[in-house]
Amino acid sequence: MILSRQNSKIKFVRALLGRAKERREAGAFVVEGVRLAEEAAKADWKFRFVLHDETLSERGKALVERLRSKGADAEEVSVEVMKSVSETEAPQGILAVVDFANLPIPKQPDLILIPDQIRDPGNLGTLLRSAAAAGVKAALIPPETADAFSPKVLRAGMGAHFRLPVRETSWKEIRQIAELNSLQVLIADMDGASCWQSDLTQPTALIVGGEAGGASESARGLADGKISIPMADETESLNAGAAGSILMFEALRQRTEDEG
Amino acid sequence: MILSRQNSKIKFVRALLGRAKERREAGAFVVEGVRLAEEAAKADWKFRFVLHDETLSERGKALVERLRSKGADAEEVSVEVMKSVSETEAPQGILAVVDFANLPIPKQPDLILIPDQIRDPGNLGTLLRSAAAAGVKAALIPPETADAFSPKVLRAGMGAHFRLPVRETSWKEIRQIAELNSLQVLIADMDGASCWQSDLTQPTALIVGGEAGGASESARGLADGKISIPMADETESLNAGAAGSILMFEALRQRTEDEG
Repeated sequence: MILSRQNSKIKFVRALLGRAKERREAGAFVVEGVRLAEEAAKADWKFRFVLHDETLSERGKALVERLRSKGADAEEVSVEVMKSVSETEAPQGILAVVDFANLPIPKQPDLILIPDQIRDPGNLGTLLRSAAAAGVKAALIPPETADAFSPKVLRAGMGAHFRLPVRETSWKEIRQIAELNSLQVLIADMDGASCWQSDLTQPTALIVGGEAGGASESARGLADGKISIPMADETESLNAGAAGSILMFEALRQRTEDEG
Repeated sequence: MILSRQNSKIKFVRALLGRAKERREAGAFVVEGVRLAEEAAKADWKFRFVLHDETLSERGKALVERLRSKGADAEEVSVEVMKSVSETEAPQGILAVVDFANLPIPKQPDLILIPDQIRDPGNLGTLLRSAAAAGVKAALIPPETADAFSPKVLRAGMGAHFRLPVRETSWKEIRQIAELNSLQVLIADMDGASCWQSDLTQPTALIVGGEAGGASESARGLADGKISIPMADETESLNAGAAGSILMFEALRQRTEDEG
């Protein structure tokens, strides 16, 4: 049982929780809580190690046993040590270090999300969660958006990270992917054409800009057009997570209704 | 200039920031930051007093002058005292105590939002912000939802609170309002009929349930039906703020497209 905060695993977890750079260099990130760890296991991501404490629920214990039987390195830690590395207010007694899986982007993706300049982790997590539900094939994360594998984004994503390909990309790569797959690149913008009047049944890359200044110059340079969400009161505005979710589900609606 | 944290205004602000009960008893709440204070002023809400410090921007100073010229009690405080009552990481040097205005619910409202069991302040603020943008006529807040006038909900609402009638209500009152206005009461639920196939052009009260257990028994008892957001992957789920936003804008879409 790990009793010291100076234990090498604990120090590694703390480093991974703290900075995107550490996660990138290690090729791993931290998954906290029973539900998220279950999602990672279900999607067959590779667990480097698992830490658990005596407060873990029966459901959590069953998960640890399943992981252990598959060869995972699972170790108990004291409640105090677990608390020292927990990011949540109510730690659930389980935390795992998981390797990045780099899910492949499927061939001929018909819907891609590009969250641009999204700095709020809750908004980014909400966008990824909605993307997975709306059938988006990949999320491409440009340089100025928050790190998608930080604890808060993972928490808000509710497991979407393990099923949706989420890639850090340069704008050059995004352009290549768009060209290679003949995607129309549309940017969410108050001055754009109504999303209800725009054809979203075409293969599309949707750029959703940030909370403060909207999308970047790079995004604007790449976009083929702009789409907006019509509002009852044009003096209002929407949260970036809400706006992106509305647009992704409008694409799904058009694609579903067209079939019917 | 106020230099002490023990000043009666500072103590009052601290009490209002802390608890819904204090806000209710005082009939007032705290508005922080230039933008939110501007929104309150623009909507003509009554400022009980304004506190500002030397870090305030030119835009903020102009607002204080406008408020003062209209008779508001504006007083300077030290940067340290301001910091002691600020809820935000980057205080903007302005904070106001504003009276509840209790905006009237318009006659024959055609769309009402009922956020039920929403505990996360960011989600509640996002729902109110989206409601104002989607042309919702009022938000009725049942007993088990977070307080709509807490600092975090106000911040996420981005000014929606000053234009959208937001009312604390019992389920009994909600039932009366629904009956009086012949509203169909629809509850957002994974097992409901597709929102794309449901008629949302009728006068509607939309119940959006909480993050954890969905809507309450009271909500289910009141509802005439359930609607869902169809998903590409049915194992997924949506954030409550995102789900409510998608449904409110689907109602607006149906109403707008029907006209065209």
